[in-house]
Amino acid sequence: MKVGIVGASGYSGEVLVKLLLAHPRVTLAAVTSRTHAGKPLAAVIPSVRGADRGLTFTDSDAAALAASDIELFFLALPHGAAATYARALVAGGKRVIDLSADFRIAKLETYTKYYGEHHAPELLPHARFVLPELTAPGWKDEVKLVAAPGCYPTSILVPLVPLLKANVITREHIVVNSYSGVSGAGKKAEEMYLYVERAESIKAYGLAKHRHLAEIEEQLALHTGAPTIIQFNPHLAPMRRGIATTITVPASPGGTIEQLYAAWRQAYAGRPFVQILPAGETPDSAHVVGTNRVDMSAVHDPRTGNFVITSVEDNLVKGASGQAVQIMNLWCGFPETAGL
Amino acid sequence: MKVGIVGASGYSGEVLVKLLLAHPRVTLAAVTSRTHAGKPLAAVIPSVRGADRGLTFTDSDAAALAASDIELFFLALPHGAAATYARALVAGGKRVIDLSADFRIAKLETYTKYYGEHHAPELLPHARFVLPELTAPGWKDEVKLVAAPGCYPTSILVPLVPLLKANVITREHIVVNSYSGVSGAGKKAEEMYLYVERAESIKAYGLAKHRHLAEIEEQLALHTGAPTIIQFNPHLAPMRRGIATTITVPASPGGTIEQLYAAWRQAYAGRPFVQILPAGETPDSAHVVGTNRVDMSAVHDPRTGNFVITSVEDNLVKGASGQAVQIMNLWCGFPETAGL
Amino acid sequence: MKVGIVGASGYSGEVLVKLLLAHPRVTLAAVTSRTHAGKPLAAVIPSVRGADRGLTFTDSDAAALAASDIELFFLALPHGAAATYARALVAGGKRVIDLSADFRIAKLETYTKYYGEHHAPELLPHARFVLPELTAPGWKDEVKLVAAPGCYPTSILVPLVPLLKANVITREHIVVNSYSGVSGAGKKAEEMYLYVERAESIKAYGLAKHRHLAEIEEQLALHTGAPTIIQFNPHLAPMRRGIATTITVPASPGGTIEQLYAAWRQAYAGRPFVQILPAGETPDSAHVVGTNRVDMSAVHDPRTGNFVITSVEDNLVKGASGQAVQIMNLWCGFPETAGL
Amino acid sequence: MKVGIVGASGYSGEVLVKLLLAHPRVTLAAVTSRTHAGKPLAAVIPSVRGADRGLTFTDSDAAALAASDIELFFLALPHGAAATYARALVAGGKRVIDLSADFRIAKLETYTKYYGEHHAPELLPHARFVLPELTAPGWKDEVKLVAAPGCYPTSILVPLVPLLKANVITREHIVVNSYSGVSGAGKKAEEMYLYVERAESIKAYGLAKHRHLAEIEEQLALHTGAPTIIQFNPHLAPMRRGIATTITVPASPGGTIEQLYAAWRQAYAGRPFVQILPAGETPDSAHVVGTNRVDMSAVHDPRTGNFVITSVEDNLVKGASGQAVQIMNLWCGFPETAGL
Repeated sequence: MKVGIVGASGYSGEVLVKLLLAHPRVTLAAVTSRTHAGKPLAAVIPSVRGADRGLTFTDSDAAALAASDIELFFLALPHGAAATYARALVAGGKRVIDLSADFRIAKLETYTKYYGEHHAPELLPHARFVLPELTAPGWKDEVKLVAAPGCYPTSILVPLVPLLKANVITREHIVVNSYSGVSGAGKKAEEMYLYVERAESIKAYGLAKHRHLAEIEEQLALHTGAPTIIQFNPHLAPMRRGIATTITVPASPGGTIEQLYAAWRQAYAGRPFVQILPAGETPDSAHVVGTNRVDMSAVHDPRTGNFVITSVEDNLVKGASGQAVQIMNLWCGFPETAGL
Repeated sequence: MKVGIVGASGYSGEVLVKLLLAHPRVTLAAVTSRTHAGKPLAAVIPSVRGADRGLTFTDSDAAALAASDIELFFLALPHGAAATYARALVAGGKRVIDLSADFRIAKLETYTKYYGEHHAPELLPHARFVLPELTAPGWKDEVKLVAAPGCYPTSILVPLVPLLKANVITREHIVVNSYSGVSGAGKKAEEMYLYVERAESIKAYGLAKHRHLAEIEEQLALHTGAPTIIQFNPHLAPMRRGIATTITVPASPGGTIEQLYAAWRQAYAGRPFVQILPAGETPDSAHVVGTNRVDMSAVHDPRTGNFVITSVEDNLVKGASGQAVQIMNLWCGFPETAGL
Repeated sequence: MKVGIVGASGYSGEVLVKLLLAHPRVTLAAVTSRTHAGKPLAAVIPSVRGADRGLTFTDSDAAALAASDIELFFLALPHGAAATYARALVAGGKRVIDLSADFRIAKLETYTKYYGEHHAPELLPHARFVLPELTAPGWKDEVKLVAAPGCYPTSILVPLVPLLKANVITREHIVVNSYSGVSGAGKKAEEMYLYVERAESIKAYGLAKHRHLAEIEEQLALHTGAPTIIQFNPHLAPMRRGIATTITVPASPGGTIEQLYAAWRQAYAGRPFVQILPAGETPDSAHVVGTNRVDMSAVHDPRTGNFVITSVEDNLVKGASGQAVQIMNLWCGFPETAGL
Repeated sequence: MKVGIVGASGYSGEVLVKLLLAHPRVTLAAVTSRTHAGKPLAAVIPSVRGADRGLTFTDSDAAALAASDIELFFLALPHGAAATYARALVAGGKRVIDLSADFRIAKLETYTKYYGEHHAPELLPHARFVLPELTAPGWKDEVKLVAAPGCYPTSILVPLVPLLKANVITREHIVVNSYSGVSGAGKKAEEMYLYVERAESIKAYGLAKHRHLAEIEEQLALHTGAPTIIQFNPHLAPMRRGIATTITVPASPGGTIEQLYAAWRQAYAGRPFVQILPAGETPDSAHVVGTNRVDMSAVHDPRTGNFVITSVEDNLVKGASGQAVQIMNLWCGFPETAGL
C-alpha cells in the first residue's frame, strides 16, 4: 500500500518519514514540501541517509496528490494549511490522517475561538479525533479523515479518562503540569528556541490559555459525559524530546489507589502502548523516547487526599507521528504495532 | 572577620567557597573535609584555581575549630553530622550558619519523624530558621545558630507566605510542582545521577513524602498562624542548577490578581533578591542561575478560579549558599548584598 | 534462530537487547547478568517495557549456556571476563560475537601490554577482528569467534584504511581527535560521569596511551602492510551518544581530494552503512545516533597541504552493538541490513 | 570613571554588562543598541534584574557618545560596524576597546581578504591587538584603540607563543582542534543554532578557511618572527559556553616536556589568568566557565614525538568580555584582576 506525507520537513514530519520508510506494510511513495521541493529526502533529513530509497521532495500540489495512486496521506502541516489539503484529498477518495489541530475539535465554535477561521468546516462531520486506546473501535468504518491527537492531550487523556469514567477521581481541582522537550515548539528559527537560551533552563509558558485546552476539555467531556475544566500548566524543559505530565487530583470520596489501578488495568488490558507502572515507581521521560508508549503510575497522598499521577511519552512519537502510524495500522487492518 | 566552612567538598560547599573567597568583608580562613584533608583547595574545586589564596583542606576537627580565632562557621554537611559540629562550635562561642536540615525544624517530633534521631536537641531553642525576606528582623540578636532554608522551601515560601497572610489565596488545594537541576541531589556517585541517565530526562520522585515538606509546612504554619497542607511534587530536570516551581492555588473568594501583586509588593518592597515580574511574563530558571534571586510572577485563570504562580531560583545560591551568605551579611551588619 | 546475550546490563547491552528484540530473523532467547539475575528484562531496561516478550535475566552460567539450544551468543562483558565465556561457548560449538577487547588484537604480546593477562589465548588463532566494510569476505567460513571492533577504532579505520591503501595520504603526521558521548565510558557510578560534572564540559583524557591504540594500529598495519603510528587524542563531550572524529593528515605528494574521494567510493560502493558526504559538507554526530552508519567527508587545505577528514557514528550502534548485529547478519547469511 | 558599551545585546555584550555593573572601579554609564533603544537593561538581559541600576538602552548615536563625559567605550558590535564607531569615538578623544575583528589584524590586505572592506583603515596604525599575557607592556601608552583578541585565538596563542619563542616545538605540522560552545556563534535566530539541532551533537565547520586564522597566524608571526601556518579545525559542541582546544605539534629535536613547562612557567609567572596544570592532568572547560582563565597542560608522546597540548577558556570571558575588562584594568592602572 502506498502512502504519502504532505509537509515532511518539520520535526514530526521527520519522525514520520523514518517510521514509514521502515514500515513492513506500506511504501512511502511521496513526501512533499513547498520549501524543499526538488531536494533529495536525505538532504533535508540527514538521519535517513542511505535508507531513503531515492525519494525526493515534491511540490505540495493538492490536485496532483489527489489524482495519484497513493491511498493514504499524512498531513504534517500547520493548522489552517492542513484543512485545505484535507478537502482536496478526501474529495479524491484518499484516506487522510491529519497531525494538525484542524480536525481535532468537533465543535466549530471552539475551533474558531482558539484557532480562527476553519478552512474546511464541511469535513468536520466526517472527521474523527482518534486516540486508539480510548476511541471506541467503530470509528474505522465511519470516517474519511482522522485527526491524530496532540502531544500534551495524549499524555493527559490516557491517564485521566478511565479514572473520570470510573468515578475514582473528582472532576474538580484537576491540576496538570506538563514539561515538554523543545521539539514540541516545532522547527522555528526564533531566539527563544536557540540552544543557548533553552539549555539549562525551565520556563512556564501559555499559562491559562494554551490551545491544547480546547482539545483536552472537549475530549474529557465527550468521554465522560460531563464538562470538565482543568488547570493546564505547560512548560519548556531543556531536552529535545519527551513530555512528562504530573496530574494532581482529589480522590473521589472513598476512592482508593487500588480502584485507580483497577480502572487503568481494565481500560488498557492488552494495549501494548500503555504501560502501567506500580504505585511508587515514577516513569521517566527518557525511557519512552523513540517508543510509541505512554508510561504512567500514581500514588495516593493520605495527607492531602489527592492522587498524584505521572505520565510520560515521546512528544514526536506517541504524541504525534507514532500515534498517526498506529491509527493507520488500525484503520488499514495491519497489526497495531507494525513498524512501531 | 574570619570565617570557615565545615564540609566544603559538595556542590553547595563549592559555591560557598567561591562566594566567600570573593566576599569584600570576610576572610575565608578554613575549609575542612574528612575526605580531602591535606589537599589544596583548587585540587578539589578546580574552578577556583589561581584565586584560592593558597588554602588547603584541613581535617574537620570540631574541638580545634572551636578553639580557633575564626568567628563564624558555615556547616555544609549532611544532616546528622551538622548537629554534632554545631554543638561544639556554639559551645566555643562561634556563630554558626547551618545549611543542613538539622535546625530547620523547630519541633523535635517533626524532625525525628522525617530525619531520625537529633544529635543536638538542646540547641533547638537557640536556633532559628531564617529566610531573610520573611523572618522578622529581630532574629539577629536572639540566636546563636541559624538554619539556612532548603532549596525547594525557599522557592515555595517566598511566593506563598505573603499571599496566605493577606488571605488572597485559599489554604486548600495548594498544588506545588517543582523541577530541580541535578545538583540538588548532591555529589553522589550513584547510577541515577549519571550524565547518560539524567540528560534528556524528566522524572518525578519522592511524591507524597519528600522531607522538605516538614520544613515547608512548619514555616507556613508559623508565618500564617494556621496549619497548611500542600501537595508537593518534586522532579529532577536535565540541567545542572536551578529550580522552577509552579504553584496552582484557588483564589480566595473575591481575590484578584491585583491583590496578589499588592501583597507581594508590600512584602518585598526594597528587597533586592526578590524580583516580581508582571503577570503574563513567566520567569526562566536560567536567568537566575549564579544569582541570589527569586524571580516570580502570577496569572489568574478565570476558567478555573486559580492563580498560577511561577518562581525560579538557583538551588545552590538562593537555595543554599547565597542565602547563607545573605544571612551572614545581615547577622554581622554587612550590606545585605555584599559579595552577592 | 535463537541468540543470547551474556552481560546485557550496560549501555551497549541495552542497545543490543533492543536491536535483537526487533530483529526479523532471530529470537532473543537468553539475557544474562550476574547482578540482575531473576529480574524481568524491562525492570533493568525500562525502554523495552511492553516489548520484552517476558524475558527475565538469568545467571551467567557458562556451562549451562554452552549446553543450551542457543546457536549464537553476543558477549557484552568487560575484557577479561569475555575470554572465559568465549572459551566455554566455543567449546560448546556456539558461534560467539564478542564486544569486548579480548579478541580484537591478534598479537598476544600487544594484548598483554595494554590489557594484562589474556584468559583464553588458545582461541586467538580462531578469532577474527571483523569490521564488515573492511574485512575480506572470506572470514565467514574461517572463524569460530568474532571480535566486534571498538567505537573509536571504527570511526578511524573506516576513513583511513582505503586512503592508506591507495597512497593518497602519508603514513606520518596522522593526527586524530575524537569526541565521544559519555556512554562511551560505560555505566559507571563514578563522580567523573555524573550529570553535573559532564554537562557543559569538554575534556581530553587518556592522551598518549589510550587502549584503543593497540587495536587501531594493529589493524592499520594489517590492512596496509606497514606499521603506522598515529596521534590519538580522545575526549569526553557533553552528550549521551555519538562519536565525532577529526583526522588531519598530509596529502601524499600529488594526492588530491578527487583521489581521496575515489578511493573511498571504490572501497565503499554499495555499502549502506558508510555514507560519503561531499567535500565541504561536514557530518554531524546527531544525524547518525540510532543508526548503524558512519558518515564522513574530507576537505583539502591548500595552505597546509593536509586533508582534514571528519567522521561520525553512534558509539553504541556502529561503534558496538549495531556492528555486532551486522556481523551476525553476514555470518548467518541474513541481509546485511536486517534489523538495522 | 564612566564607561559605556556600544551594542550590548549579544552574548558577549551581556557578559560585559554584568562584569562592568559589578566592577569596583568604573561606572557603567551607557549601554546602546539600535534594536533595543528605550528598553530597560533588565528587560533585555534578565539576569541583571535588580542589579541594573536603572539603566536603559539608548540609541547608538556615535556623535552623541563622542560628546558625552564617558571616558572609555567597549564596542560589542559586528565587524564593519565597529570601525565606524571607533572612528567617531577616537576622534572625540575616547579610549576604545573593540571586541570585533576590525582592529585585530595589523595588515590591511589580510583584513580585506578575510572580512572585506575596512571602514576606518586610517586608525590601524593607532590600534593594537592586546592579549595581556603576551603583548609587551609598553602598549598602554602608545594606543588610542585596543582590539581585544578573539575566542579561538586566545586559547591557541596563549599555549603556543612561548613554545615557539623557546624553540621547544617545531613550526610545522601544528594541528589545532577547537570545540566551542554554541554561544560562540552569537545570538543568531538560525535553524542551525536551535536547541533541537545542537543538543547531543558535535560538528566540524569552517574547515580550512576560518576567519580567525588571519588573526592567529599574524600574531604567531609577530611574536615569533617567522611565518607560521597552522591547521585549524573548529567545531561546535553541545554546550552553552566554553572552548576546549587540543594542539598536536612535534617536539623540536631534543625538545622535552620539562623544557615546555619551563617556557610556560617563565612566560606566565605571576599571571593569575593563566593556570598551568601538571602534565597528565587535562583541563576541563567546565572549570573555567565564568572565569577569566586559560587552564592548560601538555604531555609528550614518545611514540609519535609530539606534544599534545590542551587549553580551555570561557569563550565569552577570557575569549571576549573578561579579557576586554582585563585590558581596561591594565590600560587605566586598575589592579589587573579588578572586577574579574
